[in-house]
Amino acid sequence: MTELPSRVQINEEGPREGFQIESSDIATERKLELIDALARTGLRQIQVVSLVNPKKVPGMADADEVVRRIERRPGVRYTALWFNDRGLERALELDKLDIKGSLPMCASDVFLKRNQNRTQEENVEALRKTIQTYKSHGIAVTRGSVMAAFGCNFEGVIPIEKVVSLVGQIHDLAEEYELDINELALADTMAWATPESVKRVVGAVREKFPGFRINLHLHDTRGMGIANAYAGLQMGIDSFDASVAGLGGCPFARHRGAAGNVCTEDLAFMCEEMGIETGIDVEALLSAAHLAEEIVGHQLPGSVKLGGTLSAFRRHAA
Amino acid sequence: MTELPSRVQINEEGPREGFQIESSDIATERKLELIDALARTGLRQIQVVSLVNPKKVPGMADADEVVRRIERRPGVRYTALWFNDRGLERALELDKLDIKGSLPMCASDVFLKRNQNRTQEENVEALRKTIQTYKSHGIAVTRGSVMAAFGCNFEGVIPIEKVVSLVGQIHDLAEEYELDINELALADTMAWATPESVKRVVGAVREKFPGFRINLHLHDTRGMGIANAYAGLQMGIDSFDASVAGLGGCPFARHRGAAGNVCTEDLAFMCEEMGIETGIDVEALLSAAHLAEEIVGHQLPGSVKLGGTLSAFRRHAA
Repeated sequence: MTELPSRVQINEEGPREGFQIESSDIATERKLELIDALARTGLRQIQVVSLVNPKKVPGMADADEVVRRIERRPGVRYTALWFNDRGLERALELDKLDIKGSLPMCASDVFLKRNQNRTQEENVEALRKTIQTYKSHGIAVTRGSVMAAFGCNFEGVIPIEKVVSLVGQIHDLAEEYELDINELALADTMAWATPESVKRVVGAVREKFPGFRINLHLHDTRGMGIANAYAGLQMGIDSFDASVAGLGGCPFARHRGAAGNVCTEDLAFMCEEMGIETGIDVEALLSAAHLAEEIVGHQLPGSVKLGGTLSAFRRHAA
Repeated sequence: MTELPSRVQINEEGPREGFQIESSDIATERKLELIDALARTGLRQIQVVSLVNPKKVPGMADADEVVRRIERRPGVRYTALWFNDRGLERALELDKLDIKGSLPMCASDVFLKRNQNRTQEENVEALRKTIQTYKSHGIAVTRGSVMAAFGCNFEGVIPIEKVVSLVGQIHDLAEEYELDINELALADTMAWATPESVKRVVGAVREKFPGFRINLHLHDTRGMGIANAYAGLQMGIDSFDASVAGLGGCPFARHRGAAGNVCTEDLAFMCEEMGIETGIDVEALLSAAHLAEEIVGHQLPGSVKLGGTLSAFRRHAA
């Protein structure tokens, strides 16, 4: 058992996770309002859009406009998600995003085939091309990721050795292409993780590849997000993705049950209350969470935005 | 760090927590339907009503009728909550409940004064009378509890020594009156606990009083319930209160943010997925959770009832 970290980084994914799933008629103006509110909370990184086909993801039809109109605040990285060269080109054209290269793997063969129509071998070949593309644009590839690292709705339980082996392939690609990969994201894409499996998988990966800083991307579909994050903290994990108010999830079940990432303000609250620095003003984050709820027009899953922090009660009691 | 327990007992509090807070126009019939659905899940203990003044808690106006009409299932304890002799008398008259005596303490002086208009000294005096009453009815006093053991909205942080000292008073009363108190409930009444404070408080109490089996009663108002339960499991805690679908909480904020106890099916799901036996059929519990939601007529906080268990996906994948 490692000590809890003294400080964690929480990467905000709410605007991207949320607006790609919510009704597409949310005004660009309002998306910008939320992004800016988030940028004023102390968050260091905000994923603002996905640069994907608007026919497939109508909520992202205004993605380029959103990026263009962002008023960047110093100290905040504004990132985007893309899945192919066309997306990367859009990101480069916009000339306003913080762009880093990433090598995404998927621990489920079935999910990989369904989503990207690739075998594991074809995926590695595609990543080689991706690396070349990044290199040709002078973009550093700094991140590897393993989706479905804890289980898959289509494939079931994922053996830990498979996750470790994929991390090994990321490691080997990094060596071969001399990439400085400093972050490795383990994603519980379909919410199969429990606190114990978080510990097992993180432990196994770290034992074999102690050089990677591990990031956890934890979906909260089965309500385990915050407990899984705590298990991660216990393993010394100091980088988490999270989503303000719990934005995200399935458009056909607009509530926490089909939720996106673990809720940012709940995670930040837990960390701060346990003496782990986040650099985030949790009260400001609660305002952003309320704003998110107002913008989407329905209740969002986060809890602390309803229960409140303890600071007010501490003041009251003092 | 203790090993996780191999088996836990989860005490269902949903009917009592929920129906005392929900609109009072829920038919008795429907309450019985939920209680019976719960009794068929493998739960061993269900708190079905609170025997309180119906003028103060309109949702409990039919409490006696609910109890009278319950069709008891073997292996299930049906319990009730009461706060005074009148409540106990009603419980005895009904002659259908599993009645055990309890010694409730409160770690917050302010909360104790506000709620029961007693000082700590007056409370102990009252408990002495309560013990006599139980003795006169031949009822075993088997449980002690400490409310607000992790913090209080009115008093702020509660020092651990205060909790330990109250447990000491329970211990002393037990010795003095020769009570066989085998369970000690630590209640996070106002949702101040974090996983780390759960560990600290449980650790301190257990160190001084290793004889008590500790039960955790964790409110989920700030979304920490499941992480706090996990921390409890890590301390070897094997008894939890929980509320189906997350029933309960503030009537003025009908959602998880002002939630009652940690959600039964989410807790049972986590335990079972980590190899901890609950004796509960989680799928049957999900049906009960859906029924609870249908009965109250609005969304309830639990997650697994929306995200589903993993069993179906495992079968599908196999």
